[in-house]
Amino acid sequence: MDVGRRIETVLDNAVSHAEAPGAPPLLAEAIRYAVFPGGHRIRPRLCLAVALACGDDDPATSEAAAAAIELLHCASLVHDDLPCFDDAPMRRQKPSVHAAFGVPLAVLTGDALIVAAFETLARGVTRSPTRLAGLVGLIARAAGSPAGIVAGQAWESEPYVDLVEYQQAKTGALFAAATVAGAAAAGAPPLPWRLLGECLGAAYQVADDLRDVACRQEEIGKPAGRDATLGRPNAAALLGMGGALERLKHLTQEAIDVIPPCRGQDAMRTEIEAQTRLFMPASLRAMA
Amino acid sequence: MDVGRRIETVLDNAVSHAEAPGAPPLLAEAIRYAVFPGGHRIRPRLCLAVALACGDDDPATSEAAAAAIELLHCASLVHDDLPCFDDAPMRRQKPSVHAAFGVPLAVLTGDALIVAAFETLARGVTRSPTRLAGLVGLIARAAGSPAGIVAGQAWESEPYVDLVEYQQAKTGALFAAATVAGAAAAGAPPLPWRLLGECLGAAYQVADDLRDVACRQEEIGKPAGRDATLGRPNAAALLGMGGALERLKHLTQEAIDVIPPCRGQDAMRTEIEAQTRLFMPASLRAMA
Repeated sequence: MDVGRRIETVLDNAVSHAEAPGAPPLLAEAIRYAVFPGGHRIRPRLCLAVALACGDDDPATSEAAAAAIELLHCASLVHDDLPCFDDAPMRRQKPSVHAAFGVPLAVLTGDALIVAAFETLARGVTRSPTRLAGLVGLIARAAGSPAGIVAGQAWESEPYVDLVEYQQAKTGALFAAATVAGAAAAGAPPLPWRLLGECLGAAYQVADDLRDVACRQEEIGKPAGRDATLGRPNAAALLGMGGALERLKHLTQEAIDVIPPCRGQDAMRTEIEAQTRLFMPASLRAMA
Repeated sequence: MDVGRRIETVLDNAVSHAEAPGAPPLLAEAIRYAVFPGGHRIRPRLCLAVALACGDDDPATSEAAAAAIELLHCASLVHDDLPCFDDAPMRRQKPSVHAAFGVPLAVLTGDALIVAAFETLARGVTRSPTRLAGLVGLIARAAGSPAGIVAGQAWESEPYVDLVEYQQAKTGALFAAATVAGAAAAGAPPLPWRLLGECLGAAYQVADDLRDVACRQEEIGKPAGRDATLGRPNAAALLGMGGALERLKHLTQEAIDVIPPCRGQDAMRTEIEAQTRLFMPASLRAMA
C-alpha cells in the first residue's frame, strides 16, 4: 500500500472508533468532517518517511504515531479557527467546523481528536509495547504546554510574545514530533532527528506566510491576508516576497543537510525535496 | 504519605511539567488555577482505593492513573464552564477559568490538561510498561468519543438526547475509569471493577442534582439551580427530594454490593461509605 493510502486507512480506523455506536451523531459527524478530506498530510508523511529511513520494523507502530500526529494537527486547526482565536469561516475549501456545526461541537470535536490521538497510539503500539511510553511523551510534548502547539497558540494571549518560542511551538513542535516519533516508532534513537523536523517546521512556516500574503482564498482553501488582519508576524511581510523565498530555499537545503546518517538517507533526501515542494501552492512554485 | 497528599503531589508534578520554563506565563498560571485548590478529588481517591484493594504493587503507576483521571476531570470542568456551554461564572468558590483568564486561554487550558493527562500517565508507568497501553485505552475511552465525558457534553448539542447515554457518558464514564484503571494499574483484570464505578457515577450524579436544587451557591462553590436554568434533566426535580435521596441510598448500597472479591474488600467498603458521604454538602448529609 502506498504511503498516502496507509495514512488515510489508519486515520479512517481512528475516526471509526470515535464514531462507534453510542456516539452523539453530530459529534461523530463533526469529527469525521474535521479529518476528511485532509490536506497534504505533510506531518504523517514525514513521520512515516523517517520510520522507513530507520528500518520501519513495526509498521503498525509508525502508522499509529503518524495518525496521532495528524489527529492532533486536525484538533489544533478546529480550535484555532474558533471565533475566540482566528474566527476563520473556511478551512480546506469548506466551512470550518464551528461554521458548519456551531462553537460547542467545534470545542468538543477538538477535545475528542486530542483524546483519539493518544487512544490511536495505544491501540497501534502492540508489537513493541516498550516503545509506547516514549512515543506518548514525544507526541504529548509537541501538543501541550510548555512548548507544544497549545502553548504556541497561547502566546497569542500574552502581552509580550517571544517570537521564536511562538513559531517553534505553534508550527515547529509538531514537525519535530513527526521526525522524532518516526524514529522512535522504528526503535531508533529519536533525538538526532529533531533538528530535521525543526528545519522543516520553520520552512513550512515561511511557506505558509508566503501563501497568506501572495495567494487568493480559492487556492489555499481559507481566507488570505489573515496575518495582516490579525496583526501576526509574517515572514513575507517582514522580508518581502524575494527575501522570504530565499529564506525558504535556505531552510530546505539546511533540512537536507541535517538528515542523520541512516540506511535510507538518499530516499529521505528525495522525500524532503518532494515534501517541501508540496508546502507551496502551484502559483508560487515557479518562483521558488 | 496519606492518600490525599499522594494525589496532590502527583498532580503538582504534572502541573509543574506543563509550566516549565518556556511556557507562556498566563497559560501556565491558568493550568495551575484549574487544578488547585481542588475539590474532594473523589475520582483519583477511588482509583487509588481500588488499586490498593488489588494489591497496589506499583504505586507510581496507580498514582499516574489517578492523576490522569483528575486532570481530565479538571479539563472537562474548564471547557464545560465556557460561555458556549454552561456559561458558569464560578467554580470551586472562585471565578471559573474563562472568567479569570478569558475564553481563549480557557479553551487552551482544557486542551493542555487533556494532553497532560496522557503525558503524566506515560511518565509514571515505567516499572510496568506493559500496563501502559491498557491504561491509556481505558482512560481515553472515558474521556473521548463515543462514550466518554466529551461525548457526554456533546449530547447537549443533539436535537434528541438519549438520557441514559448522556448521564453515563457525562458522569459515569470517568468514575468507571477510576475503578477499572485502579485495577489495571495494580495488574489486576479491570473489567470486574467497571460496575462499581458506574454505580458510584450514578450515585454522584443524583447527589449533584440534589445539590443543584437544594443548596445555595456559597456551599457548593458554583451557581445553584443551573439545571432548571439550562433545561437539563435533574433527579431531584423529577423524583422530588425524598425520592432522589432514596435513589442515592439505593445506589450507594448497590455499589457496596458489587465490590468484586479482592484482598481489600472490607477496606474498600469503608472507603466507599466515606466517599459517598463526601458527595453531599453538609446541609444535606443529615437528611440522607
